[in-house]
Amino acid sequence: MAAKVVCFGEIMLRLSTPGYQRFVQAQSFDVTYGGGEANVAVSLANFGLDACFVTKVPNNPIGQSAVNHLRRFGVNTSYIARGGNRLGIYFLETGASQRPSKVVYDRAHSAIAEARTEDFNWPEILAGARWFHFTGITPALSDNVAEITLVAARTAKELGLTVSCDLNYRKNLWTPEKANQVMSRLMEYVDVCIANEEDAEKVFGIKAAGSDIIKGALSDAGYQDVARQLVERFGFKYVAITLRESYSASDNGWSALLYDGKEFYKSRKYDIRIVDRVGGGDSFGGGLIYALLAGKGPEEAINFAVAASCLKHTIPGDFNMVSIDEVENLVKGDGSGRVQR
Amino acid sequence: MAAKVVCFGEIMLRLSTPGYQRFVQAQSFDVTYGGGEANVAVSLANFGLDACFVTKVPNNPIGQSAVNHLRRFGVNTSYIARGGNRLGIYFLETGASQRPSKVVYDRAHSAIAEARTEDFNWPEILAGARWFHFTGITPALSDNVAEITLVAARTAKELGLTVSCDLNYRKNLWTPEKANQVMSRLMEYVDVCIANEEDAEKVFGIKAAGSDIIKGALSDAGYQDVARQLVERFGFKYVAITLRESYSASDNGWSALLYDGKEFYKSRKYDIRIVDRVGGGDSFGGGLIYALLAGKGPEEAINFAVAASCLKHTIPGDFNMVSIDEVENLVKGDGSGRVQR
Amino acid sequence: MAAKVVCFGEIMLRLSTPGYQRFVQAQSFDVTYGGGEANVAVSLANFGLDACFVTKVPNNPIGQSAVNHLRRFGVNTSYIARGGNRLGIYFLETGASQRPSKVVYDRAHSAIAEARTEDFNWPEILAGARWFHFTGITPALSDNVAEITLVAARTAKELGLTVSCDLNYRKNLWTPEKANQVMSRLMEYVDVCIANEEDAEKVFGIKAAGSDIIKGALSDAGYQDVARQLVERFGFKYVAITLRESYSASDNGWSALLYDGKEFYKSRKYDIRIVDRVGGGDSFGGGLIYALLAGKGPEEAINFAVAASCLKHTIPGDFNMVSIDEVENLVKGDGSGRVQR
Amino acid sequence: MAAKVVCFGEIMLRLSTPGYQRFVQAQSFDVTYGGGEANVAVSLANFGLDACFVTKVPNNPIGQSAVNHLRRFGVNTSYIARGGNRLGIYFLETGASQRPSKVVYDRAHSAIAEARTEDFNWPEILAGARWFHFTGITPALSDNVAEITLVAARTAKELGLTVSCDLNYRKNLWTPEKANQVMSRLMEYVDVCIANEEDAEKVFGIKAAGSDIIKGALSDAGYQDVARQLVERFGFKYVAITLRESYSASDNGWSALLYDGKEFYKSRKYDIRIVDRVGGGDSFGGGLIYALLAGKGPEEAINFAVAASCLKHTIPGDFNMVSIDEVENLVKGDGSGRVQR
Amino acid sequence: MAAKVVCFGEIMLRLSTPGYQRFVQAQSFDVTYGGGEANVAVSLANFGLDACFVTKVPNNPIGQSAVNHLRRFGVNTSYIARGGNRLGIYFLETGASQRPSKVVYDRAHSAIAEARTEDFNWPEILAGARWFHFTGITPALSDNVAEITLVAARTAKELGLTVSCDLNYRKNLWTPEKANQVMSRLMEYVDVCIANEEDAEKVFGIKAAGSDIIKGALSDAGYQDVARQLVERFGFKYVAITLRESYSASDNGWSALLYDGKEFYKSRKYDIRIVDRVGGGDSFGGGLIYALLAGKGPEEAINFAVAASCLKHTIPGDFNMVSIDEVENLVKGDGSGRVQR
Amino acid sequence: MAAKVVCFGEIMLRLSTPGYQRFVQAQSFDVTYGGGEANVAVSLANFGLDACFVTKVPNNPIGQSAVNHLRRFGVNTSYIARGGNRLGIYFLETGASQRPSKVVYDRAHSAIAEARTEDFNWPEILAGARWFHFTGITPALSDNVAEITLVAARTAKELGLTVSCDLNYRKNLWTPEKANQVMSRLMEYVDVCIANEEDAEKVFGIKAAGSDIIKGALSDAGYQDVARQLVERFGFKYVAITLRESYSASDNGWSALLYDGKEFYKSRKYDIRIVDRVGGGDSFGGGLIYALLAGKGPEEAINFAVAASCLKHTIPGDFNMVSIDEVENLVKGDGSGRVQR
Repeated sequence: MAAKVVCFGEIMLRLSTPGYQRFVQAQSFDVTYGGGEANVAVSLANFGLDACFVTKVPNNPIGQSAVNHLRRFGVNTSYIARGGNRLGIYFLETGASQRPSKVVYDRAHSAIAEARTEDFNWPEILAGARWFHFTGITPALSDNVAEITLVAARTAKELGLTVSCDLNYRKNLWTPEKANQVMSRLMEYVDVCIANEEDAEKVFGIKAAGSDIIKGALSDAGYQDVARQLVERFGFKYVAITLRESYSASDNGWSALLYDGKEFYKSRKYDIRIVDRVGGGDSFGGGLIYALLAGKGPEEAINFAVAASCLKHTIPGDFNMVSIDEVENLVKGDGSGRVQR
Repeated sequence: MAAKVVCFGEIMLRLSTPGYQRFVQAQSFDVTYGGGEANVAVSLANFGLDACFVTKVPNNPIGQSAVNHLRRFGVNTSYIARGGNRLGIYFLETGASQRPSKVVYDRAHSAIAEARTEDFNWPEILAGARWFHFTGITPALSDNVAEITLVAARTAKELGLTVSCDLNYRKNLWTPEKANQVMSRLMEYVDVCIANEEDAEKVFGIKAAGSDIIKGALSDAGYQDVARQLVERFGFKYVAITLRESYSASDNGWSALLYDGKEFYKSRKYDIRIVDRVGGGDSFGGGLIYALLAGKGPEEAINFAVAASCLKHTIPGDFNMVSIDEVENLVKGDGSGRVQR
Repeated sequence: MAAKVVCFGEIMLRLSTPGYQRFVQAQSFDVTYGGGEANVAVSLANFGLDACFVTKVPNNPIGQSAVNHLRRFGVNTSYIARGGNRLGIYFLETGASQRPSKVVYDRAHSAIAEARTEDFNWPEILAGARWFHFTGITPALSDNVAEITLVAARTAKELGLTVSCDLNYRKNLWTPEKANQVMSRLMEYVDVCIANEEDAEKVFGIKAAGSDIIKGALSDAGYQDVARQLVERFGFKYVAITLRESYSASDNGWSALLYDGKEFYKSRKYDIRIVDRVGGGDSFGGGLIYALLAGKGPEEAINFAVAASCLKHTIPGDFNMVSIDEVENLVKGDGSGRVQR
Repeated sequence: MAAKVVCFGEIMLRLSTPGYQRFVQAQSFDVTYGGGEANVAVSLANFGLDACFVTKVPNNPIGQSAVNHLRRFGVNTSYIARGGNRLGIYFLETGASQRPSKVVYDRAHSAIAEARTEDFNWPEILAGARWFHFTGITPALSDNVAEITLVAARTAKELGLTVSCDLNYRKNLWTPEKANQVMSRLMEYVDVCIANEEDAEKVFGIKAAGSDIIKGALSDAGYQDVARQLVERFGFKYVAITLRESYSASDNGWSALLYDGKEFYKSRKYDIRIVDRVGGGDSFGGGLIYALLAGKGPEEAINFAVAASCLKHTIPGDFNMVSIDEVENLVKGDGSGRVQR
Repeated sequence: MAAKVVCFGEIMLRLSTPGYQRFVQAQSFDVTYGGGEANVAVSLANFGLDACFVTKVPNNPIGQSAVNHLRRFGVNTSYIARGGNRLGIYFLETGASQRPSKVVYDRAHSAIAEARTEDFNWPEILAGARWFHFTGITPALSDNVAEITLVAARTAKELGLTVSCDLNYRKNLWTPEKANQVMSRLMEYVDVCIANEEDAEKVFGIKAAGSDIIKGALSDAGYQDVARQLVERFGFKYVAITLRESYSASDNGWSALLYDGKEFYKSRKYDIRIVDRVGGGDSFGGGLIYALLAGKGPEEAINFAVAASCLKHTIPGDFNMVSIDEVENLVKGDGSGRVQR
Repeated sequence: MAAKVVCFGEIMLRLSTPGYQRFVQAQSFDVTYGGGEANVAVSLANFGLDACFVTKVPNNPIGQSAVNHLRRFGVNTSYIARGGNRLGIYFLETGASQRPSKVVYDRAHSAIAEARTEDFNWPEILAGARWFHFTGITPALSDNVAEITLVAARTAKELGLTVSCDLNYRKNLWTPEKANQVMSRLMEYVDVCIANEEDAEKVFGIKAAGSDIIKGALSDAGYQDVARQLVERFGFKYVAITLRESYSASDNGWSALLYDGKEFYKSRKYDIRIVDRVGGGDSFGGGLIYALLAGKGPEEAINFAVAASCLKHTIPGDFNMVSIDEVENLVKGDGSGRVQR
């Protein structure tokens, strides 16, 4: 029986311009659906787990299309609440070389942002599950959702689930002060903390010495220090930090660090030609959750997670559609890209 | 010097599924922009007038794309206010045969719906103009916008412009009671009233005897009666009623009636194979405004308006991209569709 | 709890030329997946039932894509066997006017055609279900599959399920003689028999007096006679016959007849502008199964089934993506295709 | 050994807007290649003849693409001359309902229009051929090409080939006076004359009494009279007149008349839902040439030609891609458009 | 009030194959419009100036589409003359890696090439403007256009405008001798001269010592020498030279040099992954004109121009659609391409 | 008169996902046709030879489309046999960066795999030809086809043709043991042997010392050793080995080695940004055959072949559409990718 994992958050309609077009020249948008925790759920479903995604979507064809998109990839959508006024939207213009990708959010007033506590029966949703996952985006949606997230995380903890959180700071949704306050409360229930090279500072004011994000100069020692501080402050079992070196919108370096409170495990680093960078961090989270659930050791786990998310960068859309075998092959060292017949 | 016409209302991002796809199967949306008064402005620009469209759009690339879309067709966009949070959106699934087209609105909280009186300097905007046009959708957006519309219409009247209004009842935006109340106040300034076969009843409770919209059985006498009541109640110079016979989503009959307070002028009727029905009514408005401004008599005017909007039904998107010549040719009787080389 | 229905058969990769192109000019194919019983399962899932589709697909990304396509629309795919060499394919060129649509089959040696009895545990699959459905295509795939179908139908009968069969004669798969022999054995377990205007003659040699399919001249009396003979020979509870009048590849008349052994119920007839005719018969089956399961009487049931399949003809792809509400609206008489806002 | 047929004329790059878009809204054009005689050559190649198309194309990738397009459908392109400056272009906007299709020509200064007599070695080109075909478009391209056409037709006659000409008057290329003068000289060598309902009047001033093209009211007696006058003036063996009834850009009636100097043969008439009307007349010519070469009698020939061109109207692009079997099936009466499996 | 800038030249229909296809395999072309000075005008409009583009286009839908394309991006098109026979066309096949992009011109006989002096009223067009821009392509179109350019440049000079010229040598349009003769006369009125690494030699025989374009080995000293010679011969206020290092069709180095008669200013160099290289030089011109008009110093100006054109290489189509902010961000050093949310 | 070359093998329908999509997300496939020897034939036709491709395709529109695709590029298809049940298919998912391209074969039971000796009259097919080419894929299709290949190669040898074979080991079609046995017999007739860095070991057990394919570490000495062993065992006139260094799915190094029994000739090496890698090896074969037929010396020949295939990697589809001039330009050293106007 596949392990049940529950992810809670928002799924949005994603509208992206085709072929590197700018918004002002587009006459069609590619349509898909995505969101931090939804992307994790799809990763996990592809790895064979019983991945449940919990959210609220409006009772209209756009909401249904989001559900269908998740179902297509095997995500369990039976706990999704219906109602509210709209599905959040984000517009994406894919960058290249020195031109950055651009995201325009239109997510206010979404069904999930206006959801209410009674929309979700957490004891029922979490029954039989082994893992609960959310990101820092979810409690930022509204005070109500922050409260719902708290209930969910607490219930998960009480039921003995492992709880993970990807800090994922979004400056459009809240201030660092508000984030710090809300997230600090939530961290109480979190076992596994995932962050990128900026999140810890933005959310908790924890700085990575010796790093300058714009220039992409990352210091390992600095990130180890951040991880250590996070564990000290919140008592996490694991802290994972993704390390993106943005050479340009087309080429990135990608690696990560895992800290188990004792040792630091640095993954292999991949130099990636980017097809679609959005959802890259989420696919790391998906890889890590799977690897830890599958009983891999920390070194194996961090390498699995980084390889999984390396592959995501080559796939259009938010979702990571890779199998365990494909990830393992990359972990074993074959990044040669030879045609597989 | 081309006559200046000012249209005030909302422009939305229109996202439609290609090739008769249902929403749940689409992986791309065709992108265009449209809205009742914007569509009229494009019609008028195509007929060579100095058509100004007034609205408020957000300061982001989606708002800019809407402006660009209007500029492309020669609309004067210099009075458009910038600011607010989002551009309204509507999703369109094009029907066929017995399956109706489906519109899903996501327009709440748009920049224009949340616009404020000080966003528009009406004496400046209307200076030198000959005509002001709005629809019943605009005051329905919010109380604020209803107020702005009132200011605009009153100012237009004071400056001696002709004022036209397409009743365009939208049940998602307000109730008949609210509509009646707000619109009745606005009608004070209106010279030319445009309605479809349902609007007069929905907005003002004025019923067309002997018509049943679902079945498409329209009685001329009934509509004449409606037009007469409208003139009696509000003192319009002209009432124009479009008469759509919906045989199916693919085929419609299309004609209209013009009443100048004395005589009734019934247009020729066209049986149309529909390519895109949305914006059909607006193109009628555009045709009528142009024809009246150009000094055509009522019979000529109603036939011009109906022919213009007949052609719109064959063009994808909200906008009617036809020239005066093309309309005149159809008016003269050539609907044979022979290839023009 | 939604009623469980089990459908057994083949799902194929469907490759169709876009925009009325002929095969020899196409540089891309639209991709979807479909098959007689899979299409029924999608219809039923859209009507809210727990629709299970049972088949065998190869363990490769093409097989997985077929599964994903079913999951997207809510079909339960957990009983699908994996293995074998290939997924069957059919190529479709959509016709227009006097040019017929053309189907090229490439289905031999598919995973399901080469499936073995032990691939399916019928008592487990059918446990808790209320209905079992198959078509005449499935036993025609191979002797093995004919045997599996027999086991499935017999088990269903033993477990007290209602069993339905759409005769669906395919001349490329077997001869009338072989069909007669195999199908006659299967009919023993069938309660509800669905046929088009040709099937009864092709499979069982039962002729509809007074009908000429090419010319589309259909006689009601003739079809009543066929239905009566079918009931007499096989003891069905219901016989449903779809009546297609092919005016051209673009326009068809569509109605059906239901016989409950006592009375004949003739549905309303629809004149349809066709978007995609493939899967039209299957959507009728889906509508009929739903209607009977929902406890509708025969007249209501046949009208629901015909309206559902009328709508299918307006949707690209094999699958019917309509809701109960949409079908009911059409049944109630609104085929006017007015935009739904 | 397949009969060799030689067609001489222009092939142009055809750029058409997709999906009924108007020129001003298109961001892509569908690309194909076509022209009166090239279209006939493709028809004949599809019917299994050794169809040679003779023209001159520039020595650049656009010229080569035109050649490749012909080769794809089996046309013999080995006599095509290379050189000159450009390939002629025509832009096509496909109309619908009351909106006519629109062709914008950009064909001046093409390689063929500026070709010289020495570009073509007619005795070699025509060696072993049974038929030579040209249209009234070719001599209208330039005085030089008119001269080349004359040489070709005369050589063909001397070598015992049957010569056919489709009058095809193009008002953008020459005046009726010039056409009359040049074409009259060419008619000396012509055995089979093809015309539409306007050509005889435009080119030779021969009027069809009782017909009004715009209104589509065609009188059989009138066309018989035109055919008779043509035979009298030029001594043709056959005159074929296509009769198009343009109900709209979406629907046409289509039939033809053949006169062998003694009897009149009226074809069956087809009511066509149009996919692509351009090349419709050429596909008639191709059908007629094949039918006469295949030894069919006049009644059979005219029905074959009309059925072939009826099918063309359902195929996108200039070329008619149908087989003899497909045409024969339609001739035999099956226009029901039933799916062919 | 935004500064008025006038650009004079040709705008062409651009037809490009999608997805790196070669011409011979394309079945659709992407459609946009562009040309040296039109591209500059779009850049300037995007930077907020009142950019007027002056040309002549035919009175047909293709000409109108070119106008619409400019209007869409805010270019003032009110001085464009109408008439003539055709719009020039260029076909583009986008290269990759070792395969170069290929341009096939079909621009002879265009409306602008055949324009006459009386088509343009320069005193009116230039009234109130601050800058006039043209390229070496425009006078190469025909003797007539060379004369018109001379009138325009002289008038601009007389009215006190700054005049800029991008040398832009096109070997298909004229010989070096002719270019030298015509351009030398025009240089009399030019203040700002823009050239790429080949132009000065091709047009004026001025050689850059130590550079070999094919191999991409560029010597700074050599280009300084070229700039110095240009200033000496023609007395320019500024000479700007773009320096492209073509590693392959997919990757280029891009920088530039500005000489103000005293000092040399070398820009930062960008290594670019190319999306669309066409219009790259024009976007440099647009950036430079804006920067100088905005009062930036030479170092700032050359860096703004290079950054603007660096971004252009990442945008499909001829036009550079970037804002001042986006350029400034890149100038400030952020070429990391991080997603902007 | 162009030299006649005969290529024998399979042509398949190629279905590839657009835009780096994975199979599970595709809703359309790009359609082309290709296969080892067919790709060589297209290369040769593009180089101006009379390239004949011999195979067997089914008598249906899919088979005909494959033939048309070859004809489009000038391949002589007159010896292609018709019959059998299906055309082989391969599905292609284009990889990027660390994600490899994936090929799913569905080629069993194809017309050519089930072809019979009497389908091909080799003395007639090979009459007048100078060269016969096949690959190791063809005899692997079935024992029957192995036998037909043997007849063809022997006949070619008897008629004095040069015979070439690309070893092309396919692990899905046969085992190394079977390959060794069948291929060894065929090598008796082969003059020119082409192999990639793996084939010699897979087919004949001949190992290249010092090379590790996954890691891409290739030793020249090792490959020279392989070439020497091949000549010793089979007496080939030439052995050519292609050397691919797979840095990733997006970037490859590409070079080759030619051994004429005396000297080793190492080509220039290209670092390629890959557009489409499939058919890369075949385009090398096409380049080599052309170069040797054209009388180039070994050094020139190997450089021509490598340059030709370098360009292929930049072209979508299996076919190499380059001219002799384009290859020569690259050989001469211009890989700068500068726009060619």
